[in-house]
Amino acid sequence: MELSDLLQHTSEWLKGTGPNSDIVISSRVRLARNLDKYPFPHWAAKEQGEEILAKIDEAKGKIDFLKNTTTFKLAKMDNLDKQFLVERHLMSHEHAQKKDSKAIMIDDEEIIAIMVNEEDHLRIQVMQSGFNLFEAWDIINRIDDRLSKELNVAFSREWGYLTACPTNTGTGMRGSVMLHLPALVMTRQINRVLAAISKLSFTTRGLYGEGTQATGNFFQISNQVSLGHSEEEIIENINGLIKQIIEQENQAREVLLGQSKALLEDRISRSFGILKNAYIISSQETIELLSMIRLGSDLGMIKDVDRSRINELFIITQPAHLQKLENKKITSQDRDMKRAELVRSKLNQ
Amino acid sequence: MELSDLLQHTSEWLKGTGPNSDIVISSRVRLARNLDKYPFPHWAAKEQGEEILAKIDEAKGKIDFLKNTTTFKLAKMDNLDKQFLVERHLMSHEHAQKKDSKAIMIDDEEIIAIMVNEEDHLRIQVMQSGFNLFEAWDIINRIDDRLSKELNVAFSREWGYLTACPTNTGTGMRGSVMLHLPALVMTRQINRVLAAISKLSFTTRGLYGEGTQATGNFFQISNQVSLGHSEEEIIENINGLIKQIIEQENQAREVLLGQSKALLEDRISRSFGILKNAYIISSQETIELLSMIRLGSDLGMIKDVDRSRINELFIITQPAHLQKLENKKITSQDRDMKRAELVRSKLNQ
Repeated sequence: MELSDLLQHTSEWLKGTGPNSDIVISSRVRLARNLDKYPFPHWAAKEQGEEILAKIDEAKGKIDFLKNTTTFKLAKMDNLDKQFLVERHLMSHEHAQKKDSKAIMIDDEEIIAIMVNEEDHLRIQVMQSGFNLFEAWDIINRIDDRLSKELNVAFSREWGYLTACPTNTGTGMRGSVMLHLPALVMTRQINRVLAAISKLSFTTRGLYGEGTQATGNFFQISNQVSLGHSEEEIIENINGLIKQIIEQENQAREVLLGQSKALLEDRISRSFGILKNAYIISSQETIELLSMIRLGSDLGMIKDVDRSRINELFIITQPAHLQKLENKKITSQDRDMKRAELVRSKLNQ
Repeated sequence: MELSDLLQHTSEWLKGTGPNSDIVISSRVRLARNLDKYPFPHWAAKEQGEEILAKIDEAKGKIDFLKNTTTFKLAKMDNLDKQFLVERHLMSHEHAQKKDSKAIMIDDEEIIAIMVNEEDHLRIQVMQSGFNLFEAWDIINRIDDRLSKELNVAFSREWGYLTACPTNTGTGMRGSVMLHLPALVMTRQINRVLAAISKLSFTTRGLYGEGTQATGNFFQISNQVSLGHSEEEIIENINGLIKQIIEQENQAREVLLGQSKALLEDRISRSFGILKNAYIISSQETIELLSMIRLGSDLGMIKDVDRSRINELFIITQPAHLQKLENKKITSQDRDMKRAELVRSKLNQ
């Protein structure tokens, strides 16, 4: 697989399918793992990093259900390609910064993404559309089992899996769910909800991962603590919390439809009108307007654009995607025009 | 003719035809005249007012080219009808306030409108589309000549025509031109232009006449002084001034197209998108967005809506028009929805 092949399809996490896919964009589980007897990537010498990468790549080759993954070495990628993978939520910002001995393994459907030599030797991620944490957990669990057989994984009977950062020690697991909560934002209840989430030791991030602000009404919620609970307990906890948030968002949507249907219809329809007619548009405005279109589609107010096309637009309108699509570097100003052109063509089809 | 018949066609001044009709909406000439031996309307007793009205109506009946006009007595009109005529620029706000002995005579094409017992006994107005002051002057001059033969008009050899307000004494004439100057506004040159106009003893008003602010880039420019110049001189003066403003607006449009074509295209197209998709919209926003559509049509950026339809929308989206179209009173909130519906239906045709 070539990186540009990814442009030809929609990532698993953007398919807009799966349970509660009107509110839950995607579910993700990731495991942090390290090889025994090697320093964590930050302290490892270059040669050690290369050794680790070689071992992991070799192990991967022995595992049947990882045969569909391709290994991309970051040393051979330019910044645009790295940014492209960050935008697709396959790779972290941090992983894109340094390149020595780093790699990423991605399967054709973008369900599995394994970062090698990020903060830990292995960061295994499994994505699913919709509210589907258990399915993601099931897949990642099988990958973990097989990798553990092929590799000597650092594990302490007292602490569990050893990781570079203590917050990941224990299960090394993080479960997270990407939610679209426009009604909680519009009814000004979101801050109350986020405060409760934070008290329960969960963290909230924006559409573009760690360090990014919640934008366009997207909130990525994940567990903060990895130690002291079993994997199943962590998943159960997130699952229970997300169910409550879904319920609250649904209630807020009912309130909006009951009390301000006309205003909502106006706002959604105007957003659609602007996206179909703009000639210059920023990423930020695109995301905010697409968020309204997605809500309009969920509520049956917008019928002629399906959810996967809307989801796809969130990603392909990002800077690196626009440049990969055009196959050249484009200035920020020109991107705002290319982005508008792309959105117009996709929504006026 | 019934008042509601006016809904079936586009007023002369909105046809979007005539010279320089990309920038000049319409040209208007009005004459203030009073009958000799009667007090001005403000001081006239009710019976005198009725006598004046009867005399004028009788005189009108004897004049061939006024035979197509219908006399509407304000005593028989409700507030909605009066507001409707104000919105069509056939009647002043002031005339709509009190009703005793007041009337308005309108021809089928809305070229001629004669207010009886407004500030003066007679306020004769002739409207033309585009930049066409001389044609308007020619028509009103003939009306004035014939009326002067049928009526005893108050005239002093020293002062000229006598009028209730001294600013109208002399010729009793005001010429005015409605201009659409979006490029001068966008390039921030309009204040300089308006300051110059004011120094030259011309006044500037908004789309909706005396006391209204310039809205949606519309400016109505007219002479302030009526005394000490012949009618032809006044018309020539306005004409010369307007020619210069047209030239400056054209230059500003060139500058915009040269320096910010993409931004302009974006703004115009977004305005179109919002108008075609809004479900709730105020008069103010409608006018501002329509102003952009009109510019887009002038510049060939918007091709599928002709100018007369855009012009028509400026008027039929006003409160009284919406209510006349619906044939009932509508609250302000509901009007914002009806207005959006009307705009959508007219622009999505």
